[in-house]
Amino acid sequence: MNAVELIERKRDAGTLTSDEIKWLITSYTNDTVADYQMSAMAMAIFLNGLNAEELAAWTEAMLHSGDVLDFSDIDAPKADKHSTGGVGDKVSIPLGPMVAVCGVAIPMMSGRGLGHTGGTLDKLESIPGFTTGLDPATFRKVLDKTGLVLAGQSETLVPADRKLYALRDASGTVASIPLISSSIMSKKLAEGLDALVLDVKFGSGAFMTDTARARELAETMVGIGKSHGVDTVALMTDMNTPLGRQVGNANEIAESIEVLRGEGPDDLTEVTLELGVQMLLQTGVAPDAETARERLNRSVEDGSALEKFMEVVEAQGGDPAAIENPDLLPSTGKHWTIEAKEAGFVSVCDARSIGIAGMRLGAGRARKEDTIDPAVGITVLAKPGDEVEVGTPLAVLEYRHQARLDEALRILEHSWTISEEAPEPTPLILDLIE
Amino acid sequence: MNAVELIERKRDAGTLTSDEIKWLITSYTNDTVADYQMSAMAMAIFLNGLNAEELAAWTEAMLHSGDVLDFSDIDAPKADKHSTGGVGDKVSIPLGPMVAVCGVAIPMMSGRGLGHTGGTLDKLESIPGFTTGLDPATFRKVLDKTGLVLAGQSETLVPADRKLYALRDASGTVASIPLISSSIMSKKLAEGLDALVLDVKFGSGAFMTDTARARELAETMVGIGKSHGVDTVALMTDMNTPLGRQVGNANEIAESIEVLRGEGPDDLTEVTLELGVQMLLQTGVAPDAETARERLNRSVEDGSALEKFMEVVEAQGGDPAAIENPDLLPSTGKHWTIEAKEAGFVSVCDARSIGIAGMRLGAGRARKEDTIDPAVGITVLAKPGDEVEVGTPLAVLEYRHQARLDEALRILEHSWTISEEAPEPTPLILDLIE
Repeated sequence: MNAVELIERKRDAGTLTSDEIKWLITSYTNDTVADYQMSAMAMAIFLNGLNAEELAAWTEAMLHSGDVLDFSDIDAPKADKHSTGGVGDKVSIPLGPMVAVCGVAIPMMSGRGLGHTGGTLDKLESIPGFTTGLDPATFRKVLDKTGLVLAGQSETLVPADRKLYALRDASGTVASIPLISSSIMSKKLAEGLDALVLDVKFGSGAFMTDTARARELAETMVGIGKSHGVDTVALMTDMNTPLGRQVGNANEIAESIEVLRGEGPDDLTEVTLELGVQMLLQTGVAPDAETARERLNRSVEDGSALEKFMEVVEAQGGDPAAIENPDLLPSTGKHWTIEAKEAGFVSVCDARSIGIAGMRLGAGRARKEDTIDPAVGITVLAKPGDEVEVGTPLAVLEYRHQARLDEALRILEHSWTISEEAPEPTPLILDLIE
Repeated sequence: MNAVELIERKRDAGTLTSDEIKWLITSYTNDTVADYQMSAMAMAIFLNGLNAEELAAWTEAMLHSGDVLDFSDIDAPKADKHSTGGVGDKVSIPLGPMVAVCGVAIPMMSGRGLGHTGGTLDKLESIPGFTTGLDPATFRKVLDKTGLVLAGQSETLVPADRKLYALRDASGTVASIPLISSSIMSKKLAEGLDALVLDVKFGSGAFMTDTARARELAETMVGIGKSHGVDTVALMTDMNTPLGRQVGNANEIAESIEVLRGEGPDDLTEVTLELGVQMLLQTGVAPDAETARERLNRSVEDGSALEKFMEVVEAQGGDPAAIENPDLLPSTGKHWTIEAKEAGFVSVCDARSIGIAGMRLGAGRARKEDTIDPAVGITVLAKPGDEVEVGTPLAVLEYRHQARLDEALRILEHSWTISEEAPEPTPLILDLIE
């Protein structure tokens, strides 16, 4: 086969066969197809798309570019959750223990934050001692012992994606639905799952701000999962406003613990429960949504979910005392409060600018090589529908450096909109795609 | 500036500014923009185009990526001709001397053959001793002495194009009108010309088989030339049938000499004269087409054009005796005749397959690194409209190796179509774009 011929075909809106796609991905992984050929192909795909069959073949070829995990010897059903990323989205952290307690094995592989969105790995690493870089044997050992493991993607899984993602990032071909969905799904399908639930976010703080595009992404990913024989559903959830009250790292762990104690904010708790319900239904662990919700709530009420989290933290080298007493999590001790300058109802609390402000404080990365300050972050105190007076606190910023605080404050200047009337409430969970 | 941002803009069908284009081409030439970024940009341009202003800026940036020739100290008007390439297209060789004799200085830079089309440089190099790789000083010396030089593109001219062309070739982005036209025109405009005539071919043996696409290419290139202040016109000429009777290298030189002796075939002579007329009109050397044609014909009749050619051949190290007596040009002495298998009128004599057969004989290159056998080639004896009997010779192949002859004969099996009725004559020169 010939790379130029395949590029020309896709350029002219033609169709590639499964064998051709397999050859292309394999040759790219082993460096016989060049970066400059793959970036031209990525641009042709960006502009001309992939049909469902091509997309299934592309994902399949990606996932077989490296190791594929096999947990078939574990009796429990295996499931994972993936979010397209948002501001204050720490759902994976309480969700994992709650679902694991109900009898689902969760080999969870998460990512790091970039830009205005945070990453589960960064948040977990704010727990003193906690390690997310596990070798395959340790990964398996933790999963066997606790039924849950919270780690980074293994280097040996889907090497084609690692290479292709870096190339897309440098060649203007990131925001393509077939390329995004095959990137996400190849990594998830390499985990050897029975079921996968996706949290596809839309709104200002989401990767896909537009609802229609987010829906297209959700439908595409669900289609890929099903064509691969993995039960896949997606919730479409609102990311115009940060999820929960905490945006940062250590403070997001503290808020996750609140959820596990039954004291979390309503929006965060609701999204966590709804995703958990889907996982219990998909794996057949619960016969219906009501039962699923009861079991998840019980895992919180009887303390078993929190205990499970402490068990996993300990198994991955973290200090469980910091979970029991979140005051032991990193803190700078330096706070700054933003107050409302007018009275009325909060109509907008903009996730994107709050995410960017958090990044400027040091809670996120502008570039991949930036380091994270686990202690800094933003506590959001006023959200859409809340009534405020002049002087009512809108947010508290935990900061380390004055210059970074100043920069964050400038960004936050227009993050809240105060209106005379209370805004119409909008649904937090827009739709279930299955 | 940022390459990714510019790629994304063109990807989304936006417009690039002249400064952005200049930065991109400069950065690509000095390796700070990567091949994989430029190939993604080339694909975005392939699919979303460049507007007239962008195209002018792109060409301008390319032509200033290296040296730009300056012949302003030469009193005579400077002109060149470029053909998009065809089978049997040796027009440059008789045209140069004829126009030079009329008082136009011609710093002609030509290319090599690839695929089914031949190249002027390869043909010239079949003259014993003739050198096309001239350093700038020698190039200028030959031009000063004879008013005509027939050489390859200097390495120092338009380095961006050399790099970009190789990249496009390997990334499926060759057949894009903005990229083709800026590639051709940047090289021609770097020659420091007053006038340029283009021969844009259409039909089976042309790069652009489709007439409408060929017209678009012609109009685009004429537009670029004018926006750069160089008088540019294009003839659109038929390339469904080989031009002249000879397809090869040494045999094409022999046929060029026939034209210079006034004994060339009608089609080749007509295209040569028409291009020459345009050059004399563009440079103001002749006041009208009739006078121009008379002067060109006179240059043949009085032997001055042939003498000019011998002068140039000698100046570039070639043996002028081989021009006086073409029997001294390379030959294998081995010939094979193809005969008509039925009686009737030739309705098709397919340029493309004849070009490919010539390449298989050794007259052309399948890959850039292939070497040319100057002696082999095809003499086409029957062309559309000719009446043939069973056994009438259609072509004579001069060959060196039996296996290559067999391969060429297989390819030529369907190159001629014999019909009961004579075909409708079609115009050789379809249009003049100015």
